[in-house]
Amino acid sequence: MLQFIIDLRTSARDQMLEVTDQVRAGLAAHGVRDGFCLVASPHTTAGVTINEGYDPDVARDMLVALERCVPHNGDYRHAEGNAAAHVKATLVGPSQWVPVLGGELQLGTWQTIWFCEFDGPRRRRLVVSVLESSR
Amino acid sequence: MLQFIIDLRTSARDQMLEVTDQVRAGLAAHGVRDGFCLVASPHTTAGVTINEGYDPDVARDMLVALERCVPHNGDYRHAEGNAAAHVKATLVGPSQWVPVLGGELQLGTWQTIWFCEFDGPRRRRLVVSVLESSR
Amino acid sequence: MLQFIIDLRTSARDQMLEVTDQVRAGLAAHGVRDGFCLVASPHTTAGVTINEGYDPDVARDMLVALERCVPHNGDYRHAEGNAAAHVKATLVGPSQWVPVLGGELQLGTWQTIWFCEFDGPRRRRLVVSVLESSR
Repeated sequence: MLQFIIDLRTSARDQMLEVTDQVRAGLAAHGVRDGFCLVASPHTTAGVTINEGYDPDVARDMLVALERCVPHNGDYRHAEGNAAAHVKATLVGPSQWVPVLGGELQLGTWQTIWFCEFDGPRRRRLVVSVLESSR
Repeated sequence: MLQFIIDLRTSARDQMLEVTDQVRAGLAAHGVRDGFCLVASPHTTAGVTINEGYDPDVARDMLVALERCVPHNGDYRHAEGNAAAHVKATLVGPSQWVPVLGGELQLGTWQTIWFCEFDGPRRRRLVVSVLESSR
Repeated sequence: MLQFIIDLRTSARDQMLEVTDQVRAGLAAHGVRDGFCLVASPHTTAGVTINEGYDPDVARDMLVALERCVPHNGDYRHAEGNAAAHVKATLVGPSQWVPVLGGELQLGTWQTIWFCEFDGPRRRRLVVSVLESSR
């Protein structure tokens, strides 16, 4: 199994980082042609989603809406003060799969892969695992 | 890699469409026996989930509960007026995997695959990618 | 395709059960070395997530935050009285993938696989499907 790491640095507590170009570059560097790639956060206070990347307001609205659903201050016991970040990570999900055909990520026209930081700023990592197809 | 498209047409802003039969028919048409299929929305204001299909009230309650979590009108900047739809798509998720054994989708007794429209009515597509197993 | 079942018993309406050890034991019993495993709930009122397992307060806070987002009592029509459980299952998601390398689950340092019960107490099952890699 082919795996590669993408190193990230976030600059705010809640932040969405576009990572499609870095995933694409990693696949190209490893000569991946056809298969599926799993883009996964190894963290517990960050997630991965696929959504619009064209208008930056979509990412801003996403973070505001998630904060409304799961406020930073609430009925939490977790002593580290980042309980809401754990919940948001589960709501968004820890990973996403994208098919790869002829070396190209099979995303919809407006789809972008996003790393979702909920407890930054920090150094972070994404783990991309590739399942190559022999067809 | 085998892929096929399912064309959909939604008739309301928020709507859940059962697509299990169409996924099953596509797998049969392509002679898929064993493997995994990824049922994915290429859109950014629609998602895919797996949940109960027997009682139609479950889908109705899902849409009402999601609207309560992420109201259509709120603190949004995205100019297209569908910011909540983007957030709902991320909460539900853009895709789901289902194992296939002997040509049959391996779903639980009450599980159905749902396309979740959050910005209809529209023409929509589902992309089903198949990873065939040789074992 | 290799599949195995993990039998669970939950003891509360909302409960998070750590299942990483049981998944790991199943992979070892079947001699899985490299590939990906799909840990899936065949139920419609329970989900699977990956999050912190070290501090038990994280699981407790998760359940409280989900209940705040989707209260047990609300504008629901589903007659079985567990409409919120269906919604929570979709928000968390029905399944998660974890890569396996050299027989080891590739989880982050603080990541644990959780079965999320939203309509217990019950007997439950997890279905683990393995996609072995030959590389």
